[in-house]
Amino acid sequence: MDIKLQKSELQRFENLHRYSTGYINLNPIQRGGVLTPEAREALIEFADGYSIYDLSPGLEVDEIPLVKEFISEHLSKFLGADIAKFTLGAREGIFNIMHSITKPGDTIIVDGNRHYTTITAAERAKLRVVEVPNSGKPEYRINVEDYEDLIKNHKPAMILLTYPDGSYGNLPDAKKLGEIAKEYQVPYLVNGAYSVGRMPISMEAIGADFIIGSGHKSMASSGPIGVLGMNKKWEKIVLRKSKRYPQKEVEFLGCELRGTAIATLMAAFPTVVERVEKWADEVEKARYFSRELERLGLKQLGEKPHNHDLMFFEAPVLYEISKRHKKGRFFLYKELKKRGIVGIKPGLTKNFKLSTYGLKKQELKVVVDAFKDVIEKYKTS
Amino acid sequence: MDIKLQKSELQRFENLHRYSTGYINLNPIQRGGVLTPEAREALIEFADGYSIYDLSPGLEVDEIPLVKEFISEHLSKFLGADIAKFTLGAREGIFNIMHSITKPGDTIIVDGNRHYTTITAAERAKLRVVEVPNSGKPEYRINVEDYEDLIKNHKPAMILLTYPDGSYGNLPDAKKLGEIAKEYQVPYLVNGAYSVGRMPISMEAIGADFIIGSGHKSMASSGPIGVLGMNKKWEKIVLRKSKRYPQKEVEFLGCELRGTAIATLMAAFPTVVERVEKWADEVEKARYFSRELERLGLKQLGEKPHNHDLMFFEAPVLYEISKRHKKGRFFLYKELKKRGIVGIKPGLTKNFKLSTYGLKKQELKVVVDAFKDVIEKYKTS
Repeated sequence: MDIKLQKSELQRFENLHRYSTGYINLNPIQRGGVLTPEAREALIEFADGYSIYDLSPGLEVDEIPLVKEFISEHLSKFLGADIAKFTLGAREGIFNIMHSITKPGDTIIVDGNRHYTTITAAERAKLRVVEVPNSGKPEYRINVEDYEDLIKNHKPAMILLTYPDGSYGNLPDAKKLGEIAKEYQVPYLVNGAYSVGRMPISMEAIGADFIIGSGHKSMASSGPIGVLGMNKKWEKIVLRKSKRYPQKEVEFLGCELRGTAIATLMAAFPTVVERVEKWADEVEKARYFSRELERLGLKQLGEKPHNHDLMFFEAPVLYEISKRHKKGRFFLYKELKKRGIVGIKPGLTKNFKLSTYGLKKQELKVVVDAFKDVIEKYKTS
Repeated sequence: MDIKLQKSELQRFENLHRYSTGYINLNPIQRGGVLTPEAREALIEFADGYSIYDLSPGLEVDEIPLVKEFISEHLSKFLGADIAKFTLGAREGIFNIMHSITKPGDTIIVDGNRHYTTITAAERAKLRVVEVPNSGKPEYRINVEDYEDLIKNHKPAMILLTYPDGSYGNLPDAKKLGEIAKEYQVPYLVNGAYSVGRMPISMEAIGADFIIGSGHKSMASSGPIGVLGMNKKWEKIVLRKSKRYPQKEVEFLGCELRGTAIATLMAAFPTVVERVEKWADEVEKARYFSRELERLGLKQLGEKPHNHDLMFFEAPVLYEISKRHKKGRFFLYKELKKRGIVGIKPGLTKNFKLSTYGLKKQELKVVVDAFKDVIEKYKTS
């Protein structure tokens, strides 16, 4: 064998560390995925490769009574869906639906604030994508009534709404879009990667056909894992069975449930169910944070008053400083890090996004004070 | 919201445990996925959802220098491939290839010992599957020369070989099939879910176009994660980029690298590289075990002398006991468990598979003695 791999070269991979440990972390894709203590215990218990099988000796993962009960009784109820599934992640779940209910060449209509993976999933399924534009600066709102004309013109195979989007944290009127979808009888998918597990949301109440969630983004799970809820009328199409293996679902390649992530998602779930009920507190903290940063000369874009912990800020005052600072555009990252704060993308000063999810009011005060301190330290005038 | 989820009902999910802890575990899908100590540390460090981003602040996972180096320098060399990728698992990697290089209605040729997910992946990609039959009992060998006539008759879009298969642990002549593939210019995929990470294997030496491996099955990683190696001539097709996001790969939905599993696979890798060099010891242990069980009246099916730790046994002596034992067909599972051994599927006595991978000779002796003890205890005559 021609492997010329030197142990000495490889040793670095044995000792991997997170740079954010011990810091207040504002990274929007990380705030909702912090494990609960119970999830951490499950992670350690089910660390090894295929150890999830050890919940019930000899059974396939999708036959394990506890996993079956979790999915069919609790997860489905949580999503407000007739049927629930684990997926490999939110983007994979979106592809599962596109690949099952559309055919190549079909058109779908999506919101202009959609995640980039909505586009890659549609490309992979060979679909044409029409986007509903947002309202532009400063709020970038999606007016769901704008779907209507596009539905009439394009006869889409499916419509998709990102609820909320990952840039501005806007929450469009998903329920109204459910009424439109019903009127035109078009399948409707809600991408709840940043809502399922953070805030109360029900597919049934929205009137959607499908809902997608992300375990690692918003359900306190290690990744990759996602969840999917659907109306039972889609069961035979999305969960179509193999001709050769009548128990196995073709779209999910038999069984996607293999990892440690399943154990973490289930172990975190009781806490997640409780935390969504405290969503009003999260909104209150986000609004407090937005207000305080605006007092310092920053501007929160997206919906106002804001309804979600994901926020986008425009910061001309910081951009001005970056033009003069010896660290240039990296000054903000370095100054915040010195003050125990990370998660805003290094190099950004003019615009950046962050999340306040799950941080204590006291921690947010530390962040506000840090911004204040940095601005006062470097501001001229 | 209409969630009627009671904390009391959900508490069971907070306290999940493995039944196999402390036992000698012969489960074939678990032996190669036991984490190394370094992988366990990485698991704990990168437990939280999207924490893998914390290797390099502000970069996408596929931009992180250490991850890029790992994949392009070390993993590719390990696989004997021009290009390496992480995938979501072996089955997903097989689908990635099928979906990229074939079109609906195409025919592919696969070995009759293939995993069931080869079939579900082909069904998902809307392919027609022709199988090369094995030689039947007792060895169930795949004669790769049998591919040749089928290639001539069916003009397949791709051929696939499972190396080894997951039932008998047979290792067909993959290299000879590489020559046949070259002669007929048909793309050739090797499913190495049970070889990559256990034994020396090189895509280049085999002459394959693609090789697939499984992190959680054979690379001491937590799941789900897989690896893919390919010849660079396929780059533009398999790694085709999004029209809208020119850095993002359509088939992989942009970036599949999101989980804790990546950290475990990288941290385990230096040990995995070393362990494949000790493959001869594993074969020797498997042969010892096969020999000892045959002495007790069991019969090892599949190739003999055996070349892999995955083994399939026929056990008429145990089947006879099961017909008389008060625990019936579950007697073997219960008797072995009493003796500190698990991993043979509960309820099986007549035929079962197991793996000796990574077990110490002393542990295998304990297993052999347990079988001996059980047989002596219950055997009549």
